[in-house]
Amino acid sequence: MFFSTPLPLQSGAELTDYTLVYETYGTLNADHSNAVLVCHALNASHHVAGSYESGVKGWWDNMIGPGKPLDTDKFFVIGVNNLGSCFGSTGPMHANPATGKPYGANFPVVTVEDWVQSQARLADALGIQQFAAVMGGSLGGMQALAWSILYPQRLRHCVVIASTSKLTAQNIAFDDVARQAILTDPDFHGGDYYAHGVVPKNGLRVARMLGHITYLSDDDMAVKFGRDLRSGSYQFGFGIDFEIESYLRYQGDKFSEYFDANTYLLITKALDYFDPAKEFGGDLTKTLSNTRAQFLLVSFTTDWRFAPERSHEMVQALVNNKRTVTYAEIDAPHGHDAFLLDDQRYMNVVRSYFARVHEEIDGGSLKAGARA
Amino acid sequence: MFFSTPLPLQSGAELTDYTLVYETYGTLNADHSNAVLVCHALNASHHVAGSYESGVKGWWDNMIGPGKPLDTDKFFVIGVNNLGSCFGSTGPMHANPATGKPYGANFPVVTVEDWVQSQARLADALGIQQFAAVMGGSLGGMQALAWSILYPQRLRHCVVIASTSKLTAQNIAFDDVARQAILTDPDFHGGDYYAHGVVPKNGLRVARMLGHITYLSDDDMAVKFGRDLRSGSYQFGFGIDFEIESYLRYQGDKFSEYFDANTYLLITKALDYFDPAKEFGGDLTKTLSNTRAQFLLVSFTTDWRFAPERSHEMVQALVNNKRTVTYAEIDAPHGHDAFLLDDQRYMNVVRSYFARVHEEIDGGSLKAGARA
Repeated sequence: MFFSTPLPLQSGAELTDYTLVYETYGTLNADHSNAVLVCHALNASHHVAGSYESGVKGWWDNMIGPGKPLDTDKFFVIGVNNLGSCFGSTGPMHANPATGKPYGANFPVVTVEDWVQSQARLADALGIQQFAAVMGGSLGGMQALAWSILYPQRLRHCVVIASTSKLTAQNIAFDDVARQAILTDPDFHGGDYYAHGVVPKNGLRVARMLGHITYLSDDDMAVKFGRDLRSGSYQFGFGIDFEIESYLRYQGDKFSEYFDANTYLLITKALDYFDPAKEFGGDLTKTLSNTRAQFLLVSFTTDWRFAPERSHEMVQALVNNKRTVTYAEIDAPHGHDAFLLDDQRYMNVVRSYFARVHEEIDGGSLKAGARA
Repeated sequence: MFFSTPLPLQSGAELTDYTLVYETYGTLNADHSNAVLVCHALNASHHVAGSYESGVKGWWDNMIGPGKPLDTDKFFVIGVNNLGSCFGSTGPMHANPATGKPYGANFPVVTVEDWVQSQARLADALGIQQFAAVMGGSLGGMQALAWSILYPQRLRHCVVIASTSKLTAQNIAFDDVARQAILTDPDFHGGDYYAHGVVPKNGLRVARMLGHITYLSDDDMAVKFGRDLRSGSYQFGFGIDFEIESYLRYQGDKFSEYFDANTYLLITKALDYFDPAKEFGGDLTKTLSNTRAQFLLVSFTTDWRFAPERSHEMVQALVNNKRTVTYAEIDAPHGHDAFLLDDQRYMNVVRSYFARVHEEIDGGSLKAGARA
């Protein structure tokens, strides 16, 4: 969907016009009360469910679809690709209308709140005044939380999975190392590598390898890879000795083939900047005092990127505001990545929650007044 | 000290000749029973204590010196720089006798055990048949442990601080990301950057930034830096926003000015390869069954690089062998770096331990027979 009205951004810059790519699943009901917006995390896209003819599956296909926890037989689900991405919505590799050349380094820094503003316009255009739920994991969870703050009346439920209301110093540190790997790659050319016919693959590869470590738990890595050797003995060189090296390098190589370096920079900045309590002197209770949604939060015990403590902080602040909160802490070994994996307890929590959301719609407890 | 006898290495390669740079503190007593060997970790050297005229302090100057926990009024302390280092002992930037040109990428991969062999020759040359103690933190602790396995009769005490008997998959993963940052830096030139008049600064900088994150605890970073901004507000660019970014980039820049990239590669490989139980089917108890030393192990609660669990494993294996083990787990907030810092409980543990070691020497309980 093309938007010709300029979008003012938190930085003070604006996008003169922009396109958002989105996918929908299921059918919007007559009173438009069954829409669920699914927000994506770092390297994902609008393709949240189903399979393309090419065989590419949606990134949350285990969660979303007919008969799945977020059941597209009952809900109208929207996956939207964020501004700055490299998967279709307006981003650094697209032409800057002011110059006719790719934005590159001139694409403005966008924030979680900017994304929510752009998504709100999409909702307007689709005739959705109020979402049954806005949902996301990790950076996607930040967007759901921001929706509940910026547009309290526009969502009845807010589903925040494996997320946080702000990054820790350690999180920011990892992001900055990744960015420095990209920014100092000679092929980065100050962000204008498109014009040079190259991409900063080495930097992007290192960034991804590092990121990947933080998505997995120490224990999970120990179980999956341990100290297993690729060829049974030490090579006494700097090639691949350990299986974990082989795995990470493969992940890094693959990522550097399809992901855009400017997008990586932008998305990690959006992560770092997200801190809605900043305007409220760091008081998360005050920050969430205007929210009206009900909340589901889920965290995973071995997630050291966005640890359960971060969810506890949000739950406490919501309880302080007497919001209705459901919180599940799943004892899963898979670290941050657990939010994308098939854990039956996790899936059942989400399934049960959305069954309740659907009852409100179907059972008639949802009156026009309740949604105002 | 120059050694003209070739040193066979675990890899099968050998060093035709080599130099070890070392420093000593205190006085070797008449029966040569008060010598303590101090082994260094990643970016340290033989300069363990005291100050040069330039003002450069030894890296463990808070621990070692007159009246300090390891008291150089009582002990003869030796700091030795490891092979492959960039601080004086034979390393990649030195001339390969076979070619007359710097070793560069041709410097052989050396292991913890290789270092111990080279150190044993130094001990021979200094007339030290048996150390009162061999001591080290982190990678230095691995060397102390290897001494106790390879030369059980040559040390009476083994002091292993903030260390492990083997790296986890996560440890190896971080090391490999650091190495990949260096290896893929175009200025690395396959390790022969000396000939090109450049150094792979960008790669080394990223490696150090990443390493630094793993030396600190999440909590400690939160306390020291939190989300503090350098200039009070977001800059909406990719310069420095947060204090933690400023700190890490500064550390990375400084490191890339003085440290050698080939040395970084070699030392991380030595870390990754260390796994003395490998030959014993992973059975650490069997591995340590020939040790004869008494042991002091220390770990720090917030050290997630070499967590207390790694020390527990070593303590258990030593107890299984009925070795005399003292173990202290210090509740310190500073992560892995704690082993270099002034925590009074930690310092007192080491002080008390060495007081006991000295009593054995001074009190005459140390008989020639007991040392054979």
